[in-house]
Amino acid sequence: MDVINVGLIGAGTVGCGVIKVLNENKDIIEDRLGARIQLKRIADIDPERKRPIEIPRALFTTNAWEIIEDRSIPIVIELVGGTSVAKDFILGAIRKRKHVVTANKALLALHGREIFKAASEQGVEVGFEASVAGGIPIIRAIREGYIANRILSIYGIINGTSNYILSKMSEEGREFNDVLNQAQNEGYAEADPSLDIDGIDAAHKLLILIMLSFGALVEFERIHVEGIRSITPLDISFADEFGYKIKLLAIAKGENRGIEARVHPTLVEKGTPLADVSGAFNAIYIIGDAVGPNMLYGMGAGMMPTASAVVSDIAQIARNIMLGNSHSSLPKSLQGTTSIPSGLVPISEITTKYYLRFQVEDRPGVLGQIAGSLGRNNISIESVIQKGRHIGGEVPVVIMTHEAKERDLMSAIEEIDRFPVIKSKSVFIRIVDLS
Amino acid sequence: MDVINVGLIGAGTVGCGVIKVLNENKDIIEDRLGARIQLKRIADIDPERKRPIEIPRALFTTNAWEIIEDRSIPIVIELVGGTSVAKDFILGAIRKRKHVVTANKALLALHGREIFKAASEQGVEVGFEASVAGGIPIIRAIREGYIANRILSIYGIINGTSNYILSKMSEEGREFNDVLNQAQNEGYAEADPSLDIDGIDAAHKLLILIMLSFGALVEFERIHVEGIRSITPLDISFADEFGYKIKLLAIAKGENRGIEARVHPTLVEKGTPLADVSGAFNAIYIIGDAVGPNMLYGMGAGMMPTASAVVSDIAQIARNIMLGNSHSSLPKSLQGTTSIPSGLVPISEITTKYYLRFQVEDRPGVLGQIAGSLGRNNISIESVIQKGRHIGGEVPVVIMTHEAKERDLMSAIEEIDRFPVIKSKSVFIRIVDLS
Repeated sequence: MDVINVGLIGAGTVGCGVIKVLNENKDIIEDRLGARIQLKRIADIDPERKRPIEIPRALFTTNAWEIIEDRSIPIVIELVGGTSVAKDFILGAIRKRKHVVTANKALLALHGREIFKAASEQGVEVGFEASVAGGIPIIRAIREGYIANRILSIYGIINGTSNYILSKMSEEGREFNDVLNQAQNEGYAEADPSLDIDGIDAAHKLLILIMLSFGALVEFERIHVEGIRSITPLDISFADEFGYKIKLLAIAKGENRGIEARVHPTLVEKGTPLADVSGAFNAIYIIGDAVGPNMLYGMGAGMMPTASAVVSDIAQIARNIMLGNSHSSLPKSLQGTTSIPSGLVPISEITTKYYLRFQVEDRPGVLGQIAGSLGRNNISIESVIQKGRHIGGEVPVVIMTHEAKERDLMSAIEEIDRFPVIKSKSVFIRIVDLS
Repeated sequence: MDVINVGLIGAGTVGCGVIKVLNENKDIIEDRLGARIQLKRIADIDPERKRPIEIPRALFTTNAWEIIEDRSIPIVIELVGGTSVAKDFILGAIRKRKHVVTANKALLALHGREIFKAASEQGVEVGFEASVAGGIPIIRAIREGYIANRILSIYGIINGTSNYILSKMSEEGREFNDVLNQAQNEGYAEADPSLDIDGIDAAHKLLILIMLSFGALVEFERIHVEGIRSITPLDISFADEFGYKIKLLAIAKGENRGIEARVHPTLVEKGTPLADVSGAFNAIYIIGDAVGPNMLYGMGAGMMPTASAVVSDIAQIARNIMLGNSHSSLPKSLQGTTSIPSGLVPISEITTKYYLRFQVEDRPGVLGQIAGSLGRNNISIESVIQKGRHIGGEVPVVIMTHEAKERDLMSAIEEIDRFPVIKSKSVFIRIVDLS
C-alpha cells in the first residue's frame, strides 16, 4: 500500500484532533483511500504542553522548517493560525513544492492572492476545507458539487459564537453583555471576542466563499461588516412578533453590476431553514442557477469537526499524488489566468427590506411624521407595531418596510433622527427574503 | 484548452437539463475545470419528441451503441432509467473502457455489485451523484468530505413525492388518497406512484448511501421497507400534539452487530432540522464520529437540480482524464479487495421509541389492560393521550413509549389486538431521537 507522509505544524486543539482521527480511523481511511497517511513529524513551540491525546515525544520538533525542508514529506498541514508565521510557513512549504492544508481563514482572506499565486506557480495544491464552517464540506460542495452552477447567492451562518449568543438571547430574553460574559466563562467565546461578535471572522469566511463561488478575490476591507453588539432583547422580541429570528448572516450575491458582499445582523423568517440553525451550529444556504437552493448544516468549529475537514483535504491531495498529479486544481480565475469582474456593490446601493425601530414620544401625529419621511424617501411600509410599552418615557414604533434602497433608507433615518419627538438613535436591521 | 467529449444516452427531462446546463454555463465550467466539455452525440429512441430545449438534429442517433463504440468519447452518460437496457448500456460502455455517469438508483441498488466490479476491473469510474437526492452533493460529501469519519448513522428524507404528500396532509389536514390524487394531477406524483409512496425508491437510495458510508453492498430485499399509505390525518394530528411531525425516513446505523437499514414513516421532533424539511425538498442528516451531525438539504429531483449533479460527475471524471488517470476511485471494499462485515440487523432486533394508537371501547379499565400488556412485554410508557374523540363509537388511546425492542413491541401489539375492547388494528409508528 502507498504511504503518504504528512507533517503537522501546530499541535493545538485542531492539530490534536487531526492526530486523533488519523490514528483512530486509520482503517477506514486506508480502505477508502487505498493508501496510508503517515504523520511523520509534528512541529510545535511547546512539545511538553498538556494535550488531550498522547503523542510520542520523538515525533516532535520545535522547528517548523525541519518539516518544510523534509524531502520525504509532500503535504504540510498548517494549524498555527494567525497571519504572520503561518504565512511564512505556508509560502515556505509552497516554495519547496509541497502541498499545503490549512484551516487559516484570516490568512487566506488577507493574503489569499499571494498564496494561491505561489501555489499555482509551483503546481501544488492548497486545501482549505477547514477554513469555513468546520467539518461541513462546503468548499468541496462549491468547487465540485456545484461546478455546473452559476452561483446566484450565499447566505451563511458561519460564526458559531455569534449564533450561540443570539440563540441564547432569543431563548432566554437576556441582554447581549450578560450572554457574552456567560459564553466567555463557558468557553464558547474568546477572552477577546471581537473577531467573532464584530463579524470579522464571518467576513473572512465570506471572502473565501466568494472567491470560490464568483471566481473573484475581493479586498477584505471592502466587505461591509457589522457585528451583533447592538442587538437588544427588545428587537429580538419585536422580530419574533413579526415572525422572524435575528441571525448574523454573511451574504453574497452575484449581480450584473458586481458582487454584493456583507455581514450583518439580519431578520430571517421563522420556518425557513436558516432560522432554525441555533446554538453553535453553522449553515450555508446557497442558491445555484441549476441546483436551486441548497443548505449545508453542521458544527462550524471544534477539535474533531475541524479535524474531519483537514483530513479530507489531506486525503484528496494524497489521492492526487498517487495519480502522479502535480497540478493546481484552483479555478483559472484564481490562478491569475482569466479575469472575472470582481467589483463590489457599495452597501449604499443594495436593495432589501428593513426592520425599523424608532423610540418616540407617545403623542398623536408621530407615526404620521415618520411615515411621511419614509414616503418622501421612496420607502413603503409593509406593517407597523405601535404599543404602549413605555421604556424610560419612550414608546417604540416598529416598522417593516418593503424593498428599499439602502441609500434612501439612510436619508430617511437621518431625517427622522432629527425630529424632536425621536428620543434616541433609530434602529434598522436588514431582512432577508428566502421564501 | 483540453476538450473532453461526452455522449448522452437518453434525452428525457434530466438529459435535456444536462444539455441546457452544459450550454448555458459553458464559460464558468471551463473556467473552473480548465477544459471544455463537448457533448458530441445524443442517443434517444425518439429524436423528434417535443423537448424543453432546442437540440441540433445532427447530434442525435437512435442507436446508443454508436455512442458506446465511438472511440472519441471517453465519458458516457446514461439517463434512460430502468434496469434492463440501461444495464446493458452501462456494462457495454465499461467494457469499452469508458467512464460512466448515471442517475439510475434502481439499477445501482439492484446491480451495483456487478457494475462496480466491472468498472474496477476496467479501471474506469462510475459517477452517480445524481442517483441520490438530486443536486445535493451527498455522494461527494460522504466519499470525500467525510472520508476521515466512521459514519455512525444516516437519516434521510430522500423521496420528494412522499415528503410532499406528508407535508400537504399535515398542513391541510387531508386524507392520503385525496392528496395523492391531487399530486398526481399536478405532476408531483407518477401515475403509478408505488415506487415513491411505498418507500422503494427511498430504499434504493438508502442502499447506495450505505454502500458509501459503511463500505457494504447489502441486498436490496433485506432492507425493511414501509411506505406512507397507512398514515392518517388523525395520527399526524396526535403526533403534532406530542410535538412531532411524521416523515418518511430512510435510516441506516452502523452497529457492532451489523447495519440497521430501514425505510418507514417516522415521528421527528419539531424544531430539529429534519422536521422542517417540507414539500418536495430532500435532506440527509448524517452523523460521523469526528464531524458530528451534518445535514445537507435541497431539491431532490427535477430537471435542473439533477442535471447539476450529472455535470458535477462529468467534470470530476474530466479532471481525472486530464491528469492521465485511469483508476477507479471507489473504496477498496467495493472493488472486492477487502471485506467489511455487511450483516443487516433484522428489524425485530432494533430498539427505538414508538408512537402507538389503539382504538378502544370507551369504558373504564381499558388503559390498564393496554398498559399491563406493554409492561409484561418490557415496554415502558413515556406519555399518554386519551380523549373523548369518538370515531364510530371508538376512542383513540395514544401512547408514546420509551426505548423498546421491536420484537417486544410486536408481541405486545399482537396480544393487545386480541383484547375484545380493541375495535381495530392498532397503529405503531417509530420515533427518531435526534436531539
